[in-house]
Amino acid sequence: MYRTHTCGELTMKNVGQQVTLAGWIQRIRNLGGMTFIDLRDRYGITQLVFNMEKNSQLCEEARALGREYVIQVIGTVAERENKNPRLATGDIEILVETLKIINPSAIPPFTIEDETDGGEELRMKYRYLDLRRNPLKNNLLLRHRMAQEVRRYLDGQQFIEIETPVLMKSTPEGARDFVVPSRMNPGQFYALPQSPQTLKQILMVAGYDRYFQIVKCFRDEDLRADRQPEFTQIDCEMSFVDRDDILVTFEGLIKHLFKTIKGIDFTEPFQRMSYADAMAYFGSDKPDIRFDMKIVELTSKAKGKGFGIFDQAEYIGGINATGCADYSRKEIDALTEFVKRPQIGASGMVYVKYQSDGSIKSSIDKFYTADELRIWLEAAGAKPGDLLLILSGAREKTLKALGNLRLEMGDRLGLRKQDIYAPLWVIDFPLLEWDEEMQRYFAMHHPFTAPVDEDIPLFNTDPSKIRAKAYDMVINGVEVGGGSVRIHQKDLQAKMFEALGFTREEAEYQFGFLMNAFQYGAPPHAGIAFGFDRLVSLFAGLESIRDVIAFPKNNAGRDLMLDSPSYLTEAQLNELRIKVVTDEKNC
Amino acid sequence: MYRTHTCGELTMKNVGQQVTLAGWIQRIRNLGGMTFIDLRDRYGITQLVFNMEKNSQLCEEARALGREYVIQVIGTVAERENKNPRLATGDIEILVETLKIINPSAIPPFTIEDETDGGEELRMKYRYLDLRRNPLKNNLLLRHRMAQEVRRYLDGQQFIEIETPVLMKSTPEGARDFVVPSRMNPGQFYALPQSPQTLKQILMVAGYDRYFQIVKCFRDEDLRADRQPEFTQIDCEMSFVDRDDILVTFEGLIKHLFKTIKGIDFTEPFQRMSYADAMAYFGSDKPDIRFDMKIVELTSKAKGKGFGIFDQAEYIGGINATGCADYSRKEIDALTEFVKRPQIGASGMVYVKYQSDGSIKSSIDKFYTADELRIWLEAAGAKPGDLLLILSGAREKTLKALGNLRLEMGDRLGLRKQDIYAPLWVIDFPLLEWDEEMQRYFAMHHPFTAPVDEDIPLFNTDPSKIRAKAYDMVINGVEVGGGSVRIHQKDLQAKMFEALGFTREEAEYQFGFLMNAFQYGAPPHAGIAFGFDRLVSLFAGLESIRDVIAFPKNNAGRDLMLDSPSYLTEAQLNELRIKVVTDEKNC
Repeated sequence: MYRTHTCGELTMKNVGQQVTLAGWIQRIRNLGGMTFIDLRDRYGITQLVFNMEKNSQLCEEARALGREYVIQVIGTVAERENKNPRLATGDIEILVETLKIINPSAIPPFTIEDETDGGEELRMKYRYLDLRRNPLKNNLLLRHRMAQEVRRYLDGQQFIEIETPVLMKSTPEGARDFVVPSRMNPGQFYALPQSPQTLKQILMVAGYDRYFQIVKCFRDEDLRADRQPEFTQIDCEMSFVDRDDILVTFEGLIKHLFKTIKGIDFTEPFQRMSYADAMAYFGSDKPDIRFDMKIVELTSKAKGKGFGIFDQAEYIGGINATGCADYSRKEIDALTEFVKRPQIGASGMVYVKYQSDGSIKSSIDKFYTADELRIWLEAAGAKPGDLLLILSGAREKTLKALGNLRLEMGDRLGLRKQDIYAPLWVIDFPLLEWDEEMQRYFAMHHPFTAPVDEDIPLFNTDPSKIRAKAYDMVINGVEVGGGSVRIHQKDLQAKMFEALGFTREEAEYQFGFLMNAFQYGAPPHAGIAFGFDRLVSLFAGLESIRDVIAFPKNNAGRDLMLDSPSYLTEAQLNELRIKVVTDEKNC
Repeated sequence: MYRTHTCGELTMKNVGQQVTLAGWIQRIRNLGGMTFIDLRDRYGITQLVFNMEKNSQLCEEARALGREYVIQVIGTVAERENKNPRLATGDIEILVETLKIINPSAIPPFTIEDETDGGEELRMKYRYLDLRRNPLKNNLLLRHRMAQEVRRYLDGQQFIEIETPVLMKSTPEGARDFVVPSRMNPGQFYALPQSPQTLKQILMVAGYDRYFQIVKCFRDEDLRADRQPEFTQIDCEMSFVDRDDILVTFEGLIKHLFKTIKGIDFTEPFQRMSYADAMAYFGSDKPDIRFDMKIVELTSKAKGKGFGIFDQAEYIGGINATGCADYSRKEIDALTEFVKRPQIGASGMVYVKYQSDGSIKSSIDKFYTADELRIWLEAAGAKPGDLLLILSGAREKTLKALGNLRLEMGDRLGLRKQDIYAPLWVIDFPLLEWDEEMQRYFAMHHPFTAPVDEDIPLFNTDPSKIRAKAYDMVINGVEVGGGSVRIHQKDLQAKMFEALGFTREEAEYQFGFLMNAFQYGAPPHAGIAFGFDRLVSLFAGLESIRDVIAFPKNNAGRDLMLDSPSYLTEAQLNELRIKVVTDEKNC
């Protein structure tokens, strides 16, 4: 060992001890007679002292060091005159007797501080330096802690962690697979799993009634700001259970994490909200319920008074912004601009101010009397001082726009506090989604998702109305996990494939091995997968998942540190029996 | 829940309770008046009883069921008349009142018993049925338990589990990479990691001084009997440590596993044996030290007596087989055949029998007097009744052949007991290996392995004599892990690259990003990786790793259940901008 202690553990109890420390130089302060060095390692920072009077040569040596040098010192722990209460080691310092440079450092391209001056690209290229900064280190420590606690909880519930293959088989539906040419089977390819979905169902058929895995998954999608081509799931499946067993078990997991990691004790069951309610009241299938401000439908109340826009709208709805009646013209305009952004897509916004004196002022005074507007305010539960914001148009689109406006108002009013966590289950999702372009139904979750029992007759009448035994866990407006009860009955599966427009042959071709397995005694089963990167970033209070991943890729799917992907040699390509197509015409 | 209890938990304490069980039918015995069903789940087997007199309809239903049907029953726990002490639930049975078929099963293609009649191929194709068998289930449970204990131990030692990317960069040295074409970066490829070696060293530069990961690694090699294209490593790295710190820490890990998993308490430090001694005394760098039977060199004692074969040999050595002096001609011939097999490669074998009456009989009586042979026997520590087996030839090859003969004798004498575990460290490996064909040195471990300090001057005189700070952990003749102290000093690294015949440019091209990182304050570091599949199979008492992996591939790298790898569609290939080369001439 190059050290007797870490840089995070020495306190007043150690005063007088001779210790050996090793680490990186965070900062050097030359005060003439004295030189101070902050020595850093993973565990903390300890102040080193060099005294010009006592040992001028050593002090000169110390002054000649640079940031991020790796050094080893031997010295004696002493009480500090100016204690630093923000440091765990802030009561002591080390009077250095011996100094050894283990490795010098070039000048880092950005500062290794909590707030750095490095741009995104530079920090990704020098990820090993960025990872030295406290915020990133704390994220990775949190991720480690959470992974251990996930395992501790699930192991305690008799779940078995089983590794499934990374070299899988290409699946035809859904997002694009990453593929791997097989040298031993020329012309054939493995695919990297988008999730171990089929294999975990296979494991249920195999009798492993409680499976989990913290596992890498892969999707070759065009990357949005916060997607990664490889990401990590907490993947779980159970047999001989129905929906409620899953909800209780995995609510337990999330409660365990909140308790052990954040010290937050959720003693009540999580709220369960139907997809229909989530859309109607929050305009989203992942409602942020840290604040109320529910959407109120005003369609019947607002139509037929001669205001053309409303009269033509399929849907009219509003949200009540508490205490915002005094919003200025400028503020209202800003909100109007917000809802008119292409991502939100509203054509305009109507407001009704319920002023503190009880009077009403609105942008549609011409069309509605105060009494008529008062009915809306009442419906929205508005009180004097409140502001009612109203959108109209096609039902679904308007609800989503209202949902976004609600989140924007939540932000403006400081109602989305980072240290408040509001988890809930969203349930009863639609089983099928109609695709206008393809003129067919798609499975909203996946083709093995079970319908709600009482909705099964709807396969023959109105498949779009069938609710699925699917569930999402949502925390603070973020979908952290989701899953479903699976179909384990042959007949029901056939009905489902029929609804999806699959012939028996197509179903056989695409899901043959799973359907095959189901012939040999498939138990009832259900599962869930949590986005682990997302869950950690939520616990870390971050918007993005990038900084809870040690070595993330950028939006072009590149690892800037490794400079990957990269070109292969001709010899490598020949051995794999593949050719890169460079001629556009061949594509 | 479809059950109130599992099939493994009901005992006399539950007698009289009404319970609901669900599981698979292991066996049906129709005894006329009574029908018995063994109901199986992951946790055990419980006997169900159907009584013709009490409920003939239910009993008829039960008789009509088949093996591997999934059923649910409600019944009352009763004491059994004929108790089965081999079953945890053997004291009780369930008097069934209600029976529900959850799912029927086709007739399995092989029996789901501890000893099955299914061939290897069939069992891999129907892996979900094979995984129902106890031996495989116990392997996966063991694997789960071991993974959890590995994490518990390392977490307790302040190691952090950090996930490194699966989409990595192709590395030029060593085994072949699996590669992944990047759609977003046409013509470029990711590579799947053969190990996270460079990234874990990067993490040390980043200050994460105790890293581990249980991680999938990939090698596109032609598969020998017991290799898999994807395998799992316990990958570890530490900073500010030297060799002994690593040995102590990871000896601790293995001791923890033996204690918690097998109840075996290793209180003494593991033996450490130099590579030179391992080769000289055991003819192997992974000696099985469950038994002694060390190789004894006889070169100087046996040469110059006119026996041509010995006189011309570079090396002569033997092993003493205790109590085997009475081996018949046939037995000796069999051993001679064994050493002459191409894998062993000896041209013949000489024996000296030290008979119980003290007389000596050998295959070379013509050339040596009894007194001369007695000197050999003494050197080998032979006693009356023992048998000395002697091979000769080129030194290294003969030692390896003797090593194999030693293992063979160990097997024959029952000295390699499966429930005895004999771990040791092999240390002081050569740093470099000379490749005759390429006329250059290769790194025996990898190019960042540090030499033993006192051997550094040998870079200028005899590089092949340099010992590495490398170490392997060997248990019962199986290498379960290995690693090294890494070079963290620029000058030493340059010397190493020079010895390997790399120009500065080549080194930069191949290891640029790591060498770049090393400029910014690299700490001294060292690491190790354990083959997790191998370790589990050792604990399971298995020869092969295949049955400790849920979904292994066969020797052609195929997953027979998924029928993977498989062909892609033209559309997929076009999108990836690659073409499969089918014309032999283009290869």
